[in-house]
Amino acid sequence: MAANIDEIVDYQTLKTFCSKLFVKMNLPPGDAATTAEILTAADLRGIRSHGVARLKRYYGGIKSGMMLPRPEIRTIKETITSAVIDAGAGLGQPVSKRAMEKAIEIAGKSGIGFVTVRNSNHFGIAGFYSMMALEHDMIGICMTNSEALVIPTFGKNAMFGTNPISVAVPAGEEKPYVLDMATSVVPRGKLEVYERHESPIPTGWATDEEGNDCTNPSRVLENIRHRAGGGLLPLGGISELYSGHKGYGLVLLVEILSGVLSGSAFADETYKKDKNGNPLPANIGHFFGAVRIDFFREANEFKRDMDVLIRKIKESKKAEGESRIYIHGEKEYELEAKYKVEGVPLHHKVIKSLRHIAEETGIEYTL
Amino acid sequence: MAANIDEIVDYQTLKTFCSKLFVKMNLPPGDAATTAEILTAADLRGIRSHGVARLKRYYGGIKSGMMLPRPEIRTIKETITSAVIDAGAGLGQPVSKRAMEKAIEIAGKSGIGFVTVRNSNHFGIAGFYSMMALEHDMIGICMTNSEALVIPTFGKNAMFGTNPISVAVPAGEEKPYVLDMATSVVPRGKLEVYERHESPIPTGWATDEEGNDCTNPSRVLENIRHRAGGGLLPLGGISELYSGHKGYGLVLLVEILSGVLSGSAFADETYKKDKNGNPLPANIGHFFGAVRIDFFREANEFKRDMDVLIRKIKESKKAEGESRIYIHGEKEYELEAKYKVEGVPLHHKVIKSLRHIAEETGIEYTL
Repeated sequence: MAANIDEIVDYQTLKTFCSKLFVKMNLPPGDAATTAEILTAADLRGIRSHGVARLKRYYGGIKSGMMLPRPEIRTIKETITSAVIDAGAGLGQPVSKRAMEKAIEIAGKSGIGFVTVRNSNHFGIAGFYSMMALEHDMIGICMTNSEALVIPTFGKNAMFGTNPISVAVPAGEEKPYVLDMATSVVPRGKLEVYERHESPIPTGWATDEEGNDCTNPSRVLENIRHRAGGGLLPLGGISELYSGHKGYGLVLLVEILSGVLSGSAFADETYKKDKNGNPLPANIGHFFGAVRIDFFREANEFKRDMDVLIRKIKESKKAEGESRIYIHGEKEYELEAKYKVEGVPLHHKVIKSLRHIAEETGIEYTL
Repeated sequence: MAANIDEIVDYQTLKTFCSKLFVKMNLPPGDAATTAEILTAADLRGIRSHGVARLKRYYGGIKSGMMLPRPEIRTIKETITSAVIDAGAGLGQPVSKRAMEKAIEIAGKSGIGFVTVRNSNHFGIAGFYSMMALEHDMIGICMTNSEALVIPTFGKNAMFGTNPISVAVPAGEEKPYVLDMATSVVPRGKLEVYERHESPIPTGWATDEEGNDCTNPSRVLENIRHRAGGGLLPLGGISELYSGHKGYGLVLLVEILSGVLSGSAFADETYKKDKNGNPLPANIGHFFGAVRIDFFREANEFKRDMDVLIRKIKESKKAEGESRIYIHGEKEYELEAKYKVEGVPLHHKVIKSLRHIAEETGIEYTL
């Protein structure tokens, strides 16, 4: 198990270090800080697949010209309830934070604000953006399409991203409800963990190149890399028996709202490569929404009822052998509090990649 | 299999007949026609559990005073993007159609319209309302909470309804995308089918009174009736292995948007009974949304891209042994076209219940 040794690093130090790396990658200082903040927020919340482990890919993306460090971000359209932003093939984080701020600004005036972003790249955790609405007593919504990894029910080829849906809803004394879920059964990162352990994956997670259930994670991952068929299953699994068609419906909904409504690429048209196999801009799309609570009910009454609902669920009887019922976001809030004090665990391979980028860019390694 | 013999009835005749029954139950003629239209729309689309099979329950609900045939419907709040309506414990259909019309009217002016309804009853199929947006080149959204049948992950007691989510999105030459899904793995009606066949249900659908997986449909249904513990599992199943917590997250989201945001009852507070065991008003809540496409992109461009997406999916390679990939709503559109011509199949027990209500109310039986 030597492959899974973690090192613990101080959160603030990590954030500052990553920000410096992004400045070295030619991001403007403000955008560098934003991107570092959002990446490290994932590690802080225990969503390690979307944290600084991704920094290597961003570094590669910027070097290859797939992601632009200083994109031209343009507002294509703006109305009293909506806006459409072109990210100019820049990194997903800076434009997404601005887009969510815009959604909140619009909702502040009109009650509801929806903002779509086109021509963008990976933006980190969807929950970061939905949660921005909470302090304004708004419900926050965030979705994105991504690289085609997920197959439609009865299909053989990956046609959709793992397309997360995040919705954040404020509560009173209780922690907010923060849903942040890939619409596939599991994300790709989970297969990578099983591969590292040389362990088969459960049936019902993924299919092989013929579209049959597959428990070999390496085979699935290899097929995904070469777009050879097969991929991850939508929530609900392979057939209609456990309602895989519902998960497929949600995956497709996110594809529509993020990809089609924004005017971005969709389905297997994202993350294209040129003739020489070099990656082109991902051209994925995002969806952001903010909804003022008090356009429906007095916000404090609503939050008081959210507390009632949350307590009712948490205090309800547990299944045999279980001791706790969680509300969505609760585990992540607890990890955040713990890691802020004790430091953030990073896989030693991630540490190694950060050290390597620091060396290449001439930054002092300070973790 | 004698228990499953269907009779075929003409759609228009059925609708007119149901409308007459509702007039006899003291609904105003317009509301009677609306309720009949929405109930029969379910049968027409093959969603028999939500069609005229429910008429018996409505008849009972009106007789017991649980549902009011002539409620006082009040608009509690209205803004440029939102409205809140109190259904006055009336039937769900008339108020819901009005609420969706209001959402569309608001979206017509402001681009986005969200309307919540409180103090309501069963409204039929969610898809009826979301689909009302389609002809306006809008995306339609509809959700509702309902009777507590679904357990939270690691919980023992049913805390949520089967809480459907419906989203309808217009396409060009292709049929629209119409998602209309309970957020549980399966609806209660599915267990009733297995019970009639004296057949065990698959593992992963439901739990017993201790919170363990249960394959005996009668036991689950009996427990549900007596609120004795156990119930239906959320999409994704019993544990986190297949991401049952995601389904639970969606169930809870619908509970929040329909129940809490509207100011209705939520969790196990809906469908209460008085001290004598008589049903009180259900006090469930609904959520309706309409979003103008052209607040984001030119509608025809969007619909052209929807066609591209739909064709791309449908024409993609099929899994071994499969011949067709469906888009959500497609099966229902095909049944609708077929049943409009050939007639609607109704279970003989449903026919019997309609005949019985006709006799009791003094309506000529014309099916």
